[in-house]
Amino acid sequence: MASRHLTGILGVRYPIVSGGMAWCSGARLAAAVSAAGGLGLIGGGSMDAELLRHHIRKARGLTGLPVGVNIPMTFRQTPELVEVCLDEQVPVIFTSAGNPRRYTRVFQDAGARVFHVVSTPAQAGKAEQAGVDGVVAEGFEAGGHLAHEELTTMVLVPEVAEKVSCPVLAAGGIATGRQMAAALALGAAGVQIGTRFALTEESAAHPAYKQLCLQAGYDSTRAVFKKNVPMRMLHNAFRDQISEAESRGASAEQMLALLGEGRPRRGMFEGDLDEGVLEIGQVTGMIQDLPPAAEVIRSLVAGYNHARADLSPLDA
Amino acid sequence: MASRHLTGILGVRYPIVSGGMAWCSGARLAAAVSAAGGLGLIGGGSMDAELLRHHIRKARGLTGLPVGVNIPMTFRQTPELVEVCLDEQVPVIFTSAGNPRRYTRVFQDAGARVFHVVSTPAQAGKAEQAGVDGVVAEGFEAGGHLAHEELTTMVLVPEVAEKVSCPVLAAGGIATGRQMAAALALGAAGVQIGTRFALTEESAAHPAYKQLCLQAGYDSTRAVFKKNVPMRMLHNAFRDQISEAESRGASAEQMLALLGEGRPRRGMFEGDLDEGVLEIGQVTGMIQDLPPAAEVIRSLVAGYNHARADLSPLDA
Repeated sequence: MASRHLTGILGVRYPIVSGGMAWCSGARLAAAVSAAGGLGLIGGGSMDAELLRHHIRKARGLTGLPVGVNIPMTFRQTPELVEVCLDEQVPVIFTSAGNPRRYTRVFQDAGARVFHVVSTPAQAGKAEQAGVDGVVAEGFEAGGHLAHEELTTMVLVPEVAEKVSCPVLAAGGIATGRQMAAALALGAAGVQIGTRFALTEESAAHPAYKQLCLQAGYDSTRAVFKKNVPMRMLHNAFRDQISEAESRGASAEQMLALLGEGRPRRGMFEGDLDEGVLEIGQVTGMIQDLPPAAEVIRSLVAGYNHARADLSPLDA
Repeated sequence: MASRHLTGILGVRYPIVSGGMAWCSGARLAAAVSAAGGLGLIGGGSMDAELLRHHIRKARGLTGLPVGVNIPMTFRQTPELVEVCLDEQVPVIFTSAGNPRRYTRVFQDAGARVFHVVSTPAQAGKAEQAGVDGVVAEGFEAGGHLAHEELTTMVLVPEVAEKVSCPVLAAGGIATGRQMAAALALGAAGVQIGTRFALTEESAAHPAYKQLCLQAGYDSTRAVFKKNVPMRMLHNAFRDQISEAESRGASAEQMLALLGEGRPRRGMFEGDLDEGVLEIGQVTGMIQDLPPAAEVIRSLVAGYNHARADLSPLDA
């Protein structure tokens, strides 16, 4: 079974990874997920080297189980974040947004496992050629940065599973055990879950942002910045400005100027609900509570087993 | 089991419906699907009353099993198509694109079952209030007309299944038994499949259009006309014109003028690959053959059973 192979690689009980989300995934969330049997990731993308080291050590103080780190490959501070992870001997690294060739071997030579986040089958093929231990196939329904191809989890996961022989984690639109069962039926060995863990007690995000996500309906998120790197975000005053500019035919340069600097921090960490960028997945419309991460894991496992048992065979 | 209830309502062996696709779903395809144990739909949207009557009778000559009809609710010829279906005592009607209140009771009073196609949980609620026998929850990965909300199958299906108590058919991104198993894990009682049946021997679409779809990769479809009724279509010269106009910020009126009249017919039925509209789902990138419809059904059932058996329980 693919999921057993995966749990062996990750050193965890359940094939469930919490995404390394900027401004949400600090030591508390990552440690809580790992302590409950999944793999918790610290989101390196919103940290400098010193802060990342602090969170890695803090997570170790909270659980003896493995905790991983997500590092975007394209950031100014990427080399320093890589150094910290090597130095701290982080056992599992998830790389995203960039070339997987850059650091995969470096981490593996230091004894770590490396997973790379992809949004197309072609990117999955490149990641496998770079020698990764597995890939995360992230569909268009996910929060935050997306690909222009807009492949949904339903289409992307089987295409990636067909393309590569390494384990595939499905991501995008997965918040319940039913959705986890669907992901595994599609050929994934496990799941990486963002939004559901962003909306937990231990998530580091600002309480006002969490509350706004809880109030969100099915129509609250949209993918915008389609001339730049597309991004899924919650409706707010700033997203209205973006949509208006896009509707007018604003150029990629004008859109970048409108985005400016630091808006995700303002929105998700400082709680500026009007002017900040509020990244969240489409599945936020289904979520109405802020449980502890361990309860999310229990509910995913129970829901998965229930959905699985509910599938009757068809007479061939 | 929800899927057994559904097959009872539909009078079929498998919970598999072939979409009533304009220019693809004539009598031959619908009868082949029904004869193989699914429910075949004739696509009324691209027919006038006389042609629809011809196809209904032709299908009856090809199989003794039930065949249904899809009727869009917003077309000029809708009232005449409804009359033909009543007159011919079509046992199952799928309504789409419009208000389900308009004809649901009319068909039911005549002894037919009525399913309505929805793209949001709110639409599903309205369809249930209108008294439908079931709904089709169609995700953003589907071909042809889409909703502005862009809810993917992974997110839409569980939300709709939660919202209504009638049976839910999942649509969008389903071409294999794995994807069918995923849809049922999400809470659907069955599936409505478009693209995979559009690309069969019996599909009435033009051979050149079918061949272009077979050559398509994962990146070949996009949802365009976002200021009007969004539509997913295959890449061609005309779609480049659309994208360029949208990028410039063209208004909804300008986009309608660019679309003009009759382009779907030109593309899908007459084989004008450059200037026609080529509607197809995102999943076309996974499809490389044109089998008979019966082979698609066999492969869906076998693939579903395999995917189902492959899901191991997790230790709670």
